[in-house]
Amino acid sequence: MERVIVDMDEVIADPMNEMIDWYRKEYKQDVDWEKMLVGSWLKGFPDEHQQLILERLLAPGFFRNLPVMPDSVDVLKEMNQRYEVFIVSAATEFPNSLKDKMEWLLEHFPFFTWKQIALCGDKRLVYGDFMIDDHLKNLKYFNGKKYLFTAAHNLTITGYDRINNWKEAAGIFLK
Amino acid sequence: MERVIVDMDEVIADPMNEMIDWYRKEYKQDVDWEKMLVGSWLKGFPDEHQQLILERLLAPGFFRNLPVMPDSVDVLKEMNQRYEVFIVSAATEFPNSLKDKMEWLLEHFPFFTWKQIALCGDKRLVYGDFMIDDHLKNLKYFNGKKYLFTAAHNLTITGYDRINNWKEAAGIFLK
Repeated sequence: MERVIVDMDEVIADPMNEMIDWYRKEYKQDVDWEKMLVGSWLKGFPDEHQQLILERLLAPGFFRNLPVMPDSVDVLKEMNQRYEVFIVSAATEFPNSLKDKMEWLLEHFPFFTWKQIALCGDKRLVYGDFMIDDHLKNLKYFNGKKYLFTAAHNLTITGYDRINNWKEAAGIFLK
Repeated sequence: MERVIVDMDEVIADPMNEMIDWYRKEYKQDVDWEKMLVGSWLKGFPDEHQQLILERLLAPGFFRNLPVMPDSVDVLKEMNQRYEVFIVSAATEFPNSLKDKMEWLLEHFPFFTWKQIALCGDKRLVYGDFMIDDHLKNLKYFNGKKYLFTAAHNLTITGYDRINNWKEAAGIFLK
């Protein structure tokens, strides 16, 4: 079986939109999409609220209640029959997120087991046949086929094959 | 730089002796070392206390206060200068352990960063040049040079090169 390594944030979980929805409600302000293009959606929030946004991101519970990316459950359920799927998240920077991420994943994707999850610091450590990720820093050193999953912060990046949503992923992996 | 993948439990942390010390104090009984030889030190505790031991293992805090294996700090500090060291623990089976393990590691081995830690379910996912581990299930699929780190539960295993303690590790990696 070929191995597919799938990222969590901005790929199957949606922390960006969770944060934006909350911010609009609390502060009646919008984000600056242009500013995200440096490679981080966090940069889209106004300077005076950067600290606040970061604190909310780092707090226990934030990663426990995120929206699921459209169609990711159905497509990954099917992929899980045909491939060896691992969910790999660069999460050790945020120790409070670790348990939240495990619980979130096993709730929404109950067909995965704890054996298929890895919470790491640096994805150079893992190998496989395919990687789906929204960050170049993760794809960069990967030895297999790389797919950049489209996110607000990576829209201007060129030179990578893209997956824009999970319907497209199905077209590639389940055809 | 060559990459060395180092396990946590029974290699740099000592959950077994922590548990045995506590058990002797609380129950005035000893463990059966023979029974551990099936590949798990947990089996050394009497049947009637298996549940109790497992509950203590799974509780928040257990992995936060473990003894450090002798000489592991000094030797890994030096190895960290000469190799790309990753600490990889099969920990996602125990979600309560994740944050504890991160904090424990960064306290006792402050020269490591969060980038060098991975908490996973299945070590087939990782690759490198050397792996030091006390479990065959982890070493089995590894593509590099494997070292079985001696522990009470693996004393009868043959066919692997062993590292019996961190002074021996220094002899191999720092010569």
